[in-house]
Amino acid sequence: MREPKSTSPGFRAIEVIRKKRDGIELSPIEIEDLIVAYTRGEIPDYQVSAWLMAVVLRGMTRAETAALTDVMLRSGEVLDLSSLSARKVDKHSTGGVGDKTSLVLAPLVAAAGIAVPMISGRGLGHTGGTLDKLEAIPGFNVNLPVAAFRRVLEVCGCAMIGQTPQIAPADRKLYALRDVTGTVESPYLICASIMSKKLAEGIDALVLDVKTGSGAFMKSEKDAVFLAGLMVETGERMAKQVVALITDMDQPLGSMIGNALEVVEALEVLRGGGPEDLKELCLHLSGWMLYLGGGFKSVAEGKQHSEQLISSGKALEKFRRMVDLQGGDVRAIDDPKRLSQAQRRVEITSAKSGFVSTVQCEDVGTACVVLGGGRERKEDSVDPAVGIVLHKKVGDRVAAGEPLATIHYNSDARLERARQMITGAYDIADAAPSTKRPLIHRVIQKSGEKH
Amino acid sequence: MREPKSTSPGFRAIEVIRKKRDGIELSPIEIEDLIVAYTRGEIPDYQVSAWLMAVVLRGMTRAETAALTDVMLRSGEVLDLSSLSARKVDKHSTGGVGDKTSLVLAPLVAAAGIAVPMISGRGLGHTGGTLDKLEAIPGFNVNLPVAAFRRVLEVCGCAMIGQTPQIAPADRKLYALRDVTGTVESPYLICASIMSKKLAEGIDALVLDVKTGSGAFMKSEKDAVFLAGLMVETGERMAKQVVALITDMDQPLGSMIGNALEVVEALEVLRGGGPEDLKELCLHLSGWMLYLGGGFKSVAEGKQHSEQLISSGKALEKFRRMVDLQGGDVRAIDDPKRLSQAQRRVEITSAKSGFVSTVQCEDVGTACVVLGGGRERKEDSVDPAVGIVLHKKVGDRVAAGEPLATIHYNSDARLERARQMITGAYDIADAAPSTKRPLIHRVIQKSGEKH
Repeated sequence: MREPKSTSPGFRAIEVIRKKRDGIELSPIEIEDLIVAYTRGEIPDYQVSAWLMAVVLRGMTRAETAALTDVMLRSGEVLDLSSLSARKVDKHSTGGVGDKTSLVLAPLVAAAGIAVPMISGRGLGHTGGTLDKLEAIPGFNVNLPVAAFRRVLEVCGCAMIGQTPQIAPADRKLYALRDVTGTVESPYLICASIMSKKLAEGIDALVLDVKTGSGAFMKSEKDAVFLAGLMVETGERMAKQVVALITDMDQPLGSMIGNALEVVEALEVLRGGGPEDLKELCLHLSGWMLYLGGGFKSVAEGKQHSEQLISSGKALEKFRRMVDLQGGDVRAIDDPKRLSQAQRRVEITSAKSGFVSTVQCEDVGTACVVLGGGRERKEDSVDPAVGIVLHKKVGDRVAAGEPLATIHYNSDARLERARQMITGAYDIADAAPSTKRPLIHRVIQKSGEKH
Repeated sequence: MREPKSTSPGFRAIEVIRKKRDGIELSPIEIEDLIVAYTRGEIPDYQVSAWLMAVVLRGMTRAETAALTDVMLRSGEVLDLSSLSARKVDKHSTGGVGDKTSLVLAPLVAAAGIAVPMISGRGLGHTGGTLDKLEAIPGFNVNLPVAAFRRVLEVCGCAMIGQTPQIAPADRKLYALRDVTGTVESPYLICASIMSKKLAEGIDALVLDVKTGSGAFMKSEKDAVFLAGLMVETGERMAKQVVALITDMDQPLGSMIGNALEVVEALEVLRGGGPEDLKELCLHLSGWMLYLGGGFKSVAEGKQHSEQLISSGKALEKFRRMVDLQGGDVRAIDDPKRLSQAQRRVEITSAKSGFVSTVQCEDVGTACVVLGGGRERKEDSVDPAVGIVLHKKVGDRVAAGEPLATIHYNSDARLERARQMITGAYDIADAAPSTKRPLIHRVIQKSGEKH
């Protein structure tokens, strides 16, 4: 990995902006000069925001995207985990509603002898965040410094923390600017942001869970596939093994939404139970992580081994160990009542009989935010206890008056809007849906590979 | 004219940026809110530069362009010249090499009883600026406050000054940002910038001289016609009479380039002499200004009357009056030796016999900058004395050894590069060019009008 460098003599940001504006491909040096100078505060926000908007509207080539990822990655510390003999593999999800797979995967994959150095984010908007879920466990510290993160990883094989200022500072600065300049929505910039942070973890391989459907950032499968392809090719150009699964986020994943509730459901999966869709997705992602981590001939073999690690209790044991090492109360693992609990519950019942044809994913996620379980603005704090438990999902038969969902809430003032949103999220049809959306839509990998 | 207003409740700059990014038309209110808030410093440069880049790449509708012009115009003082009984007409040129028409037109049109409140700019890059030319007259003050400008106008019928901080401050702030963010090159933004400043002069009508050719900002006629159409329609939407002439700038206008030299050549035209192309363009523009100013049945009649105002000496007399009122040394009008004179002169001769097929316009303009007669950066000062006198123009026959041009210079160090540029600017062909570019390519006016 090259060291961060000085900008080239004669570098002029305005020329790089003009080139991108005019649709001319930038050289890796030009991209590096721009980002290095920006991260150092040598060029102003207003030049970079103009450049970002030109990128949003003109796009980037694969080479430009890889160059941007590379310089963002090298803008800070790249973890050197070479002291760990195990292969290092991580997973990243583009975010959804009820997606608690990370909580299952980190201990599950670590139980197979693969290191999982997982750096995650917080929830924003209708999607949840892994850090908020972990913090529902009393005492769990997601703010470990890099040295402590490394120690947990060495002892336990997995560790889960938040972004540190040392990792990809260019991304933090760029993301803050994108957030206020309408330049978030570019697959090239999203790719560079995700890949720079993940590859700075010092991993050998990465499994990407790119969500598609009404509750995903990428609503259309076409957009999800495009982003996945960009990330896989960027990984390939940076000599990392990367695979992307396009998975369904047209209804919430699993049954529980809300921070403490999602810990409960992740624990169910680690105990061999849990809802089918969540369990299946966890096993599939784990199968891929084990396969890329080495020692398994196929994804199927990795998946099979993952099932054994669950049924033998080794995956749950790993989770317990990690919680302990990161300061969490391990008693909460066996006694979910030790997690935050909402003071009140109310059931939403179906007005008519029929079959569930839709559970509007974004509405359920937003209802959870309304209850206080998520953030409307970055500076908001979250209530770990509140959330929603879904009793019916798409395709399920329901009778008039039967419960569709239970809302866990702490504030009467917040209940009404959430209740309306959950009620509105359900569509009940007379007949069962004729087609079922697959859980895993597609696998995107390096051209030529087969599994 | 409406007063500048507060931004609407709930206005969010990010939403305006996103809309423009996505190609959705902005309402006049949204544009007004954005520009008002920016001019007041309520929204940061980095949001506006992202919006400007989105405008460059997405364009604007005619309604958006008019709304932007309107809010920029109303960001500062709009001169109230209603105390002058005369109609107020101005001319604006998009800039070129050897373009000294303003110096002829202001007194010529004022001599016809029409008020010309002319606010001009300085030279930048290869194009000259009216203010620099006026300042070649010893003592001439282009920095009059608005009250003094009005007085000169009342007494003399014409006055020529530079931008004041009171006129269109939004344009000044936006232009400074565009200059450093690669967002100058947008016909919509150029239109709003020009039209907001010109209409803030409190004029009734405006004649636009939109240059096309190698020495123009708009190289292609197509681009020039597009910009001209935008400006004419914007004027129309703001209830002003606006006409645009697309005129040639493929070789320098007239024979003299350089600040004092251009004053000399303008005076020649005001005395009834001067080179044919310059004289013809001045009469044509004046014809339009007189026609729009009223009292003339046609442009041809306005042109004819302009010729009389020159031959009677009335136009020159007006110029003398204006120079006197603005503090200039009127003796320089009769004795050009009182203008700055370069210490040295050198002739450029033709290496071969034939016909001039090209006089590369931008190279001649840049040669003048190299001599010190123009600015490479805004903060540069100019040498009024230096410049170039062209003895041959496109189509002229030339013998080997015959002078093509004379360079007026003060610094030996600057001479060599200028000499090479002038030599390189001339192409000599064996035969005379078969076609001649017209001086006036086209007239763009409100649909339906005929002259």
